[in-house]
Amino acid sequence: MGFEQAWLSYGVLRKESKWRGIERICADPASPVMKNAVGELQKALGTMTGKEPVLCSGADKEAAGTRCIRFRQDGEGKADGYHVYEESGDVVIAASSDCGMLYGAFELIRQAQIGNSPVGLDIAKDPVMPLRMLNHWDNMDGSIERGYSGNSFFFDHDEILVDDRTVTYARLLASVGINGAVINNVNVKDAATWLITDRYFDKLRQLSEIFAGYGIRLFLSLNYAAPVELGELDSADPLSEEVGKWWKDRMKLVFEQVPHLGGFLIKADSEGRPGPFTYGRTHADGANMLAEAVEPYGGLIIWRCFVYNCKQDWRDYKTDRARSGYDNFIELDGAFRDNVILQIKNGPMDFQVREPVHPLFGGLKDTNQMLEVQIAQEYTGQQRHVCYLIPMFQEVLGFRTYVTETDDTVKDLVSGKTFGHTKCGMAAVANTGNDENWTGHDLAAANLYGFGRLAFDPSALAEEIAREWVVRTFGEDEEVCEVLLFILMNSWRAYEMYNAPLGIGWMVNPNYHYGPSVDGYEYDRWGTYHRADHLGIGVDRSHHGTGYAGLYREPNASMYDSPESCPDELLLFFHHMPYDHKLQSGKTVIQHIYDTHFEGVELVDEMVKRFESLEGKIPDKAYRRMLDRFRHQKEHAREWRDQINTYFYRKSGMDDEKGRQIF
Amino acid sequence: MGFEQAWLSYGVLRKESKWRGIERICADPASPVMKNAVGELQKALGTMTGKEPVLCSGADKEAAGTRCIRFRQDGEGKADGYHVYEESGDVVIAASSDCGMLYGAFELIRQAQIGNSPVGLDIAKDPVMPLRMLNHWDNMDGSIERGYSGNSFFFDHDEILVDDRTVTYARLLASVGINGAVINNVNVKDAATWLITDRYFDKLRQLSEIFAGYGIRLFLSLNYAAPVELGELDSADPLSEEVGKWWKDRMKLVFEQVPHLGGFLIKADSEGRPGPFTYGRTHADGANMLAEAVEPYGGLIIWRCFVYNCKQDWRDYKTDRARSGYDNFIELDGAFRDNVILQIKNGPMDFQVREPVHPLFGGLKDTNQMLEVQIAQEYTGQQRHVCYLIPMFQEVLGFRTYVTETDDTVKDLVSGKTFGHTKCGMAAVANTGNDENWTGHDLAAANLYGFGRLAFDPSALAEEIAREWVVRTFGEDEEVCEVLLFILMNSWRAYEMYNAPLGIGWMVNPNYHYGPSVDGYEYDRWGTYHRADHLGIGVDRSHHGTGYAGLYREPNASMYDSPESCPDELLLFFHHMPYDHKLQSGKTVIQHIYDTHFEGVELVDEMVKRFESLEGKIPDKAYRRMLDRFRHQKEHAREWRDQINTYFYRKSGMDDEKGRQIF
Repeated sequence: MGFEQAWLSYGVLRKESKWRGIERICADPASPVMKNAVGELQKALGTMTGKEPVLCSGADKEAAGTRCIRFRQDGEGKADGYHVYEESGDVVIAASSDCGMLYGAFELIRQAQIGNSPVGLDIAKDPVMPLRMLNHWDNMDGSIERGYSGNSFFFDHDEILVDDRTVTYARLLASVGINGAVINNVNVKDAATWLITDRYFDKLRQLSEIFAGYGIRLFLSLNYAAPVELGELDSADPLSEEVGKWWKDRMKLVFEQVPHLGGFLIKADSEGRPGPFTYGRTHADGANMLAEAVEPYGGLIIWRCFVYNCKQDWRDYKTDRARSGYDNFIELDGAFRDNVILQIKNGPMDFQVREPVHPLFGGLKDTNQMLEVQIAQEYTGQQRHVCYLIPMFQEVLGFRTYVTETDDTVKDLVSGKTFGHTKCGMAAVANTGNDENWTGHDLAAANLYGFGRLAFDPSALAEEIAREWVVRTFGEDEEVCEVLLFILMNSWRAYEMYNAPLGIGWMVNPNYHYGPSVDGYEYDRWGTYHRADHLGIGVDRSHHGTGYAGLYREPNASMYDSPESCPDELLLFFHHMPYDHKLQSGKTVIQHIYDTHFEGVELVDEMVKRFESLEGKIPDKAYRRMLDRFRHQKEHAREWRDQINTYFYRKSGMDDEKGRQIF
Repeated sequence: MGFEQAWLSYGVLRKESKWRGIERICADPASPVMKNAVGELQKALGTMTGKEPVLCSGADKEAAGTRCIRFRQDGEGKADGYHVYEESGDVVIAASSDCGMLYGAFELIRQAQIGNSPVGLDIAKDPVMPLRMLNHWDNMDGSIERGYSGNSFFFDHDEILVDDRTVTYARLLASVGINGAVINNVNVKDAATWLITDRYFDKLRQLSEIFAGYGIRLFLSLNYAAPVELGELDSADPLSEEVGKWWKDRMKLVFEQVPHLGGFLIKADSEGRPGPFTYGRTHADGANMLAEAVEPYGGLIIWRCFVYNCKQDWRDYKTDRARSGYDNFIELDGAFRDNVILQIKNGPMDFQVREPVHPLFGGLKDTNQMLEVQIAQEYTGQQRHVCYLIPMFQEVLGFRTYVTETDDTVKDLVSGKTFGHTKCGMAAVANTGNDENWTGHDLAAANLYGFGRLAFDPSALAEEIAREWVVRTFGEDEEVCEVLLFILMNSWRAYEMYNAPLGIGWMVNPNYHYGPSVDGYEYDRWGTYHRADHLGIGVDRSHHGTGYAGLYREPNASMYDSPESCPDELLLFFHHMPYDHKLQSGKTVIQHIYDTHFEGVELVDEMVKRFESLEGKIPDKAYRRMLDRFRHQKEHAREWRDQINTYFYRKSGMDDEKGRQIF
């Protein structure tokens, strides 16, 4: 399938733009990364100005009257940081690494696209998070688990695809500073188990070289039971010498064949995946065995903390899935090798529209940590509803854990600031597929873009990122910009309003996770309940209940533990409350449910109305794609509203004080 | 896959049995049916007595001291009826048709199996229903829609299978008097549309000849849009001359190639299937066009009445799916050609564990009618729970419609007694597949067996049929018989007890239709709602509501219309009632829900306990198969109990007066 260039589709700059007149790039690119840095500048400025800058030698600084872009080796910044600035009409990219040069080049392209001048330019940036990764849940048959943008562009029919799209993908990632990608699903089955065998080495090497040229390390998801499933051993016991040796031999082979490989992501003992529990061993045993095997090659083991009992009895009020990640890992703090990273989802459940921050953040002190978010909108509208998630991620990153007195936010933890870790960062479950526009909903691309920007620089404001993305994608038309910003910046809020109320989550159709079903998971085995009866709703996670609130450090623990101080938006996550309980907002729980659901739909209507005003102002193809989705969202938001309002009206018998229609 | 012989697996008779000593069969079998009649007797008596009777000429009645079975042409009974009796130590099978002879032969086998003596034998039977059919929902890829016994034995990979299993299938059907089978799914798609083309004629002919040898007519489900989907016409408008001619030509070809074909079953304008509505025509237009095309060949058009709006808005309280079959067809009464039969499901919804009888029975006067039941246990435990359905079918057949003053039951209507119809009868959606035991649950075979016996003779008692089936399948051990009879005869009641209460139905997981989900269909588009709120539950189908009750003739209409006279077991089907309403049983609705759900589980426990006492007394393979299912049923019945009780406890806030555990 054909594909578009997303935010790297360059428009023509205004006549007075000072980027015009930069006619040379002075460089002697030796490495693939440097060649790409130069190439990207040539392509971008060539399209934007109509005249592609000529490549001259780095030594050739003076040419009669023409301005140039120069590269300057500079040891000052962090690795992969850059400093771009004007120097006597020229533009200098200074960095200590090739990758920093590439990022500097993309910074210039960004500045040109958003209408800033090279005159007086002076921007220095170091990437704040060491690891900025995408996790693709692509299966080797070409399907994507929780994929809403077509099929995989990495795999088809159990083969690895390497083509033009691969290159554009790498360019898009590098342009926002993403430096790692896991290309296969964490649920590793069938052919994917064989990715670490010679069946796939050639293609993996090709892929990893393209990636490396853009500063991206290729990672793979690993099947913990590979030695067994490949038919070579009878056991995958991490403390067995034989198993350890098998992995060492295997990793030697893998890294010899695919030297650019960054390491592996592992989902073990979770949702039916094998793991060390099978052998009565701990996650530390399992992770460390693998870490030892990849250590000689600088490899990383990224170990997911999404471990819980997925066969819970709904009748069991004591077991609390929210506790499970914490309970499974907290005692292993300090037990992991230095090249192991624990990857922790933003919340304790699973990417709901609203969750508290995962208590392992601030719990763990002596363990490398990575924050996992999901830009694939599994529970947030599946890229049919618009839901710009960067504001949510920013809230998470800004959450104070109180693990130390200062520098204790999630951002500080995963950027390494709190404890001086260097193997840490942020990963996003990817929202891309082989759709022409990459992300199904055109506006979903803002999440991909924003994730990279945020991981590179978490101080960037969600709205600024959105504005930048809009301008780079759709150009500088102020009306387009205003409308799309209005939509993006209201979208998460709107979705939350017509979704499950007050942090309780999970009111979705089982399996698909799309569309409302209040009781969809209520009597199921997944540990995801709302416990609504005719008097009230919510899960008691206070010290009267499962004690989950106590997993946080003070003052968070006390704040969450009491319904008086618990923030409204998480009240039902932490407490079972009567429908007539008054929120801090002054509304009762039931009236809040009714109000938010009616108002959420009104907000969507407003979004769609404004969007429709853009006909003719953005490319028609994109307009049509979005319009289809907006019309669906409008309808579907009503379905959410009516099902949830009706459910609670029927259950509580309490009238909407505004007398609106409930069925 | 291998297969067993079900109730045609013959045991050895006791030494003193008078069936021993029948050493000859005197006959001159010329037709395939007669050859099969003789062959079945030889096979059965040979196994049961250890000595296969010799075939002698029909003229050769006297052989020194040996007894024989003789066939006697007899014009007295109905076509396909028979009279079997002892005559001077010999056994005579008298009938007016070959098929009657075959049924007589199977009657003798049955008598021998259940331990009756040939001495004094004198049984005369005419089939009560003219058509006794199975409807297979088998797809040509080998899957079976709503199949719970493995894959199809008719189709695989778009090819028709004809093998040993086909013959045993025909023998099983003939042994219980079934005389027609539709082999492909009513949802005709893909390859199945091509069944009426030369791609499949050879195999269909072979199949139909095997069937014909056992008195069974082969039927096919037809794609109403075949002329379009086969790419030959642009329209399937039933009033178009071109379309009519296309069908006439096509049917000429089909019946020339497959002369034994009985006709076609059609699901039109239903659940996405094409039909005459597409062209603004009536179902009579559609059916009559096809009927005209098959008429020269004695073909029948069986037209399903399962037509309803499957895209209802759950917010719409006025539309009533239960009305739709009646509303769509009642005005067409008298408009159908003589070789059209309307096939009407037993209830107005879709094979729930409890429904009222379909109001078209007693509504239609001048239309051939066939009763459709479902022995595939789609909504009644999917052949993992035991649910012997013959008692339910008997209730349906015995229902007085008051369309005439006497002879007005459903049985009278579909046997032709009421209006003198001859094209009528009963069809069952089949429960067979390529599992070794044919029906998944061994006890589900009692439904296949019982359906045939009931259609042949609706006066047979469900318990008698069950006893007969048990003895024929598992032998005469009295304890085995008692235990299995207890289980079978309590199974429908038990399933109803722990299922959706008081006739409301539909509290199942969407799509699969397995396992409890009280709100599973509540906010969906299928017209299947319970409308429960904190005060009460049920759908008002009285004259205050949708008016459905008024579709029945008096006194049924009045009986259903009032909550006072409406039978308890259908109360919530017809009325929305408060939880504290007192039933005729003296219990409140809510207490009835609690009691039946607790007691239903207790009944299952008792069934399983008794079943476990049979270890070693029935073949181990069958015991293990059933034990697995019983253990699951025991667990799963608890899931039903707890989900439904909890749902209503939470919603109503009303305590169980016995204080049992609700979650």
